[in-house]
Amino acid sequence: MTEAALSEALHPFDRAVALEAAADRGEGVVTGHTDPAYTNMVGPFGGITAAVLVRAVLDDARRLGDVLSLTVNYAAPIADGAFDVTAIPVRTNRSTQHWIVQLTQDDVVTTTATIVTGVRRDTWSDTEAAMPAVPPAEDVPLRPMPDFVAWARNYEMRFVEGALPDTDTGAQPDSTTTLWVRERPSRPLDVPALAALSDVFYPRILRRRGTFVPAGTVSLTTYFHADAETVEAQGDRPLLATARAGVFGGGYFDQSARLWSPDGALLATSHQLVYFKH
Amino acid sequence: MTEAALSEALHPFDRAVALEAAADRGEGVVTGHTDPAYTNMVGPFGGITAAVLVRAVLDDARRLGDVLSLTVNYAAPIADGAFDVTAIPVRTNRSTQHWIVQLTQDDVVTTTATIVTGVRRDTWSDTEAAMPAVPPAEDVPLRPMPDFVAWARNYEMRFVEGALPDTDTGAQPDSTTTLWVRERPSRPLDVPALAALSDVFYPRILRRRGTFVPAGTVSLTTYFHADAETVEAQGDRPLLATARAGVFGGGYFDQSARLWSPDGALLATSHQLVYFKH
Repeated sequence: MTEAALSEALHPFDRAVALEAAADRGEGVVTGHTDPAYTNMVGPFGGITAAVLVRAVLDDARRLGDVLSLTVNYAAPIADGAFDVTAIPVRTNRSTQHWIVQLTQDDVVTTTATIVTGVRRDTWSDTEAAMPAVPPAEDVPLRPMPDFVAWARNYEMRFVEGALPDTDTGAQPDSTTTLWVRERPSRPLDVPALAALSDVFYPRILRRRGTFVPAGTVSLTTYFHADAETVEAQGDRPLLATARAGVFGGGYFDQSARLWSPDGALLATSHQLVYFKH
Repeated sequence: MTEAALSEALHPFDRAVALEAAADRGEGVVTGHTDPAYTNMVGPFGGITAAVLVRAVLDDARRLGDVLSLTVNYAAPIADGAFDVTAIPVRTNRSTQHWIVQLTQDDVVTTTATIVTGVRRDTWSDTEAAMPAVPPAEDVPLRPMPDFVAWARNYEMRFVEGALPDTDTGAQPDSTTTLWVRERPSRPLDVPALAALSDVFYPRILRRRGTFVPAGTVSLTTYFHADAETVEAQGDRPLLATARAGVFGGGYFDQSARLWSPDGALLATSHQLVYFKH
């Protein structure tokens, strides 16, 4: 199979997070390429950028344990084309490791991130958060996002509540969106894909205002609560994803989200600060 | 007044976050010193470290706008003594600025952080989160933390629910803690003090287990929802602080918290991933 044919055969997600070593540019430097399938309004979908940064750390031979937490700061738009990711494990403890990660284009920083990885141990466990009571995914109709949002075509979305407003939806008092979501075409879940899914929600401000408002994530933090094996054991079943804002004002709002497996495991919690206009 | 007498006259918080320029060690480098008043089990209270990092960026002449978001990763214990803080504005946009901040001792990284600052603009605003319905602070009895937790002596805590468990409290089904809190002695609120308060909760695992369990914050993210003037206008009134965990397992749990002004302004939301043993 030629390299081009192989690339065609890859799932769009795997193509978008594919990274190559570039050790000649320093230890921990890898290169990647933006993928047109994940284009957003300005630059790529924030979730795919998060996934790329997670992929870089997971691929690094120095990495200790699972990804526990991730913070991504979207400092500047990423232009279509090649980028470098530099991942530096600034501190390695017995059970945790602290990474500083940056995405650059022509040596200009577009994205900063910190990632904590670590060993999970067998401890007392309990899920205090409550999974929303919703119909099973197969009973919820597919409702695609508008076609001009390229990245959203990679996700099969079944909104239980809070779908993207129509022109006649009007302003809503509650920003909650809850949906069953999986990749399209379907693909077995892994940790980078879960990182991407933590940013799968359209901006909460659109729902509150009932109209289109320019908005973009400033900073995203995701906590991963399951080990890689548990994440991968989900296969291609849809996850239940739910998000809500806390407060809007001064040009920013916050969002908190949870990603549940169909059988009630809280796989990830995620928070973000979002810029909006008007 | 001698320097020693002046230092005595400073509020413990101001003493703990005092930083001096050390430009000879590079642009954006300042030095500070741990303060015995903020000692925790191992190294200083995580909140005071967060405050120091915020202080460093606020003091930097290159800083644009208010602090919008802060992520602090507690990579290693900070030893008693001097430390350096290096704050680098890696990207400055028209309305936002992205900082990478590190705390080091003898050139060893103990703490990594990213801070986003930015200009707030007049936009549509709404508080979607609901402030807990609680009695006013003056009707809630003071309940200090145990005396061996040095840092907690700097806070006047009035627990509405979820006080630190006693030996006879037993395991609890809900990790929520809600308290009125202000500094002791009282001190007008500012943004670094708000950053510290976002970590004022004892570990949620203690409440669930009803017993002492070793625990420590791995990563803390705080979003600031009010401009500096609004924060400072709070004066020394207590804030209503509430926190709850989402899921425990594998040696880690997450916590989400909100900090409210007495008149119902959501000043900050904060999230953390916490390590625990057993």
